[in-house]
Amino acid sequence: MQGNSEKRGASRRRSTPPPMQGNGNTAVAENELPLAASEPLLNRESPTALYMQIADLLRADIDSGGFATDSKLPAENELTHRFGVSRVTVRQALAQLLAEGYVVSKQGKGTFVSRQKFLHDLKPMRGFYDALIAQGVEPKTKLLEFSPASASESVRQAFGATDGDCFQLKRLYLVDEEPIALVVSTLPPEASGLTWEQVSHNPIYGLLENVLKLPVTKAEVRIRARSAGASVGQLLGLSAKAAVLVMERESFGNDGALRERTSFFIRPENYEFSLSVQGPLPVGSSIKNVNGSIARTATK
Amino acid sequence: MQGNSEKRGASRRRSTPPPMQGNGNTAVAENELPLAASEPLLNRESPTALYMQIADLLRADIDSGGFATDSKLPAENELTHRFGVSRVTVRQALAQLLAEGYVVSKQGKGTFVSRQKFLHDLKPMRGFYDALIAQGVEPKTKLLEFSPASASESVRQAFGATDGDCFQLKRLYLVDEEPIALVVSTLPPEASGLTWEQVSHNPIYGLLENVLKLPVTKAEVRIRARSAGASVGQLLGLSAKAAVLVMERESFGNDGALRERTSFFIRPENYEFSLSVQGPLPVGSSIKNVNGSIARTATK
Repeated sequence: MQGNSEKRGASRRRSTPPPMQGNGNTAVAENELPLAASEPLLNRESPTALYMQIADLLRADIDSGGFATDSKLPAENELTHRFGVSRVTVRQALAQLLAEGYVVSKQGKGTFVSRQKFLHDLKPMRGFYDALIAQGVEPKTKLLEFSPASASESVRQAFGATDGDCFQLKRLYLVDEEPIALVVSTLPPEASGLTWEQVSHNPIYGLLENVLKLPVTKAEVRIRARSAGASVGQLLGLSAKAAVLVMERESFGNDGALRERTSFFIRPENYEFSLSVQGPLPVGSSIKNVNGSIARTATK
Repeated sequence: MQGNSEKRGASRRRSTPPPMQGNGNTAVAENELPLAASEPLLNRESPTALYMQIADLLRADIDSGGFATDSKLPAENELTHRFGVSRVTVRQALAQLLAEGYVVSKQGKGTFVSRQKFLHDLKPMRGFYDALIAQGVEPKTKLLEFSPASASESVRQAFGATDGDCFQLKRLYLVDEEPIALVVSTLPPEASGLTWEQVSHNPIYGLLENVLKLPVTKAEVRIRARSAGASVGQLLGLSAKAAVLVMERESFGNDGALRERTSFFIRPENYEFSLSVQGPLPVGSSIKNVNGSIARTATK
């Protein structure tokens, strides 16, 4: 199982259309509401701005593997022609995708699809750093902060400590010189014995297992999405409104004591968590269908 | 294990500060970059707009459980006073949180924190509908579409079918009359035997197992985040730029044939996936730290 997922992750980075995501041209592409081939590309009667419709179409193409990683998007001229819109509209659409991190703009060279996708298999227990290594990627990191942080009594108790400050660690992960994740971690009072050098050169699990001799045997993770917000966005090179993928992790020792608590703020365009689940499948009762009108308009 | 997560999910809905998310007032809250108590609330020298800084602070408070679900945010007057800004700025901050779905505005009553959180345990194999039921929530659904969709040869082969169209199903999930997820599914040609009525009243796994007698024994899921885009955003009541949580699922039968392929587009503010992982923990080698300046400015 686990071997399979790894292989699949690896093959996605080499080939273009990932097996899971269909082809942008079939009616069953599942990343965006499908567009029948006979329909015109844009709906000029729609309340949705044309640039946003174009951004939606290009995003769906990128999601479905229609453009390879690092491949160049069609030139502005070509997009202008393809969609039958002005150059200004095309530029607005590209600016939108740029702000979302779907594409990068290279000075004088054009617009390119963002980096390779990382597929983080949740099943084996391992750190964020090792999950990237398992994909054949060697990220660089930058330690931004390692300092005492006053902890509430309940946090200290969870760590099994009676006194002392907890420690906060903030680290940026980079791939190809671009930030991919911001990691904000709370470590137990034992971390007071760590040097900046040790913290710089060891991932969190390495610090706990190898340096502090505080082995980890269980982790609970939660995954959600939110807007980056200004401070996280700035470090990740995203606008404040852009989506980030968030993993929150708590790790525990054999004795049930908390070992660390970490939030990973991840640039979402290149990162997916994956998991394979086996049956049996219990199927519940029937569902409640509503027939009334529930159409909503987008919040502005 | 599984029992634990369930209980934990249930307790989170009743009490206020979830165990995982610390307290917004301690320096170790991990949902936003922490704010030391001695610092002024806003940084007027920052390039980040004041309204965005306020939105960041309120969002962090909500994330950390500082405001209970469905509780009312302080009135505009109070926020104006607390942050020392104009009413216009406070309104911009609230509009930002509204667009992200963190809060809802009730006519004449004020601004309220959005609904309860749903914690979807990934470990047991079960459908999206049953994952909500397991949280004690009974969602309503609205079937938006069930129609043939021409499939590529490779998709048909994955389904183990030699001919016939695949079927596409689009369904909206609602809790308390508010949309929480849009589900877009591709079903095998066997779905041609289903009635609208059957599709309306059965979740996807129910249709496969109980109606079509196509049992599911394995599922592979991927979880990521993206901007809603205009079409998904409109159905979920979000702005096109707002973050959505996406789960993509492929389910298989005992014979390895694909049974269904579904994308779940989820309003992110109330939904988290959770997983408990057991060791042993293999720890890799040391990491590469960069010392050069890698500060980036946010993409506009």
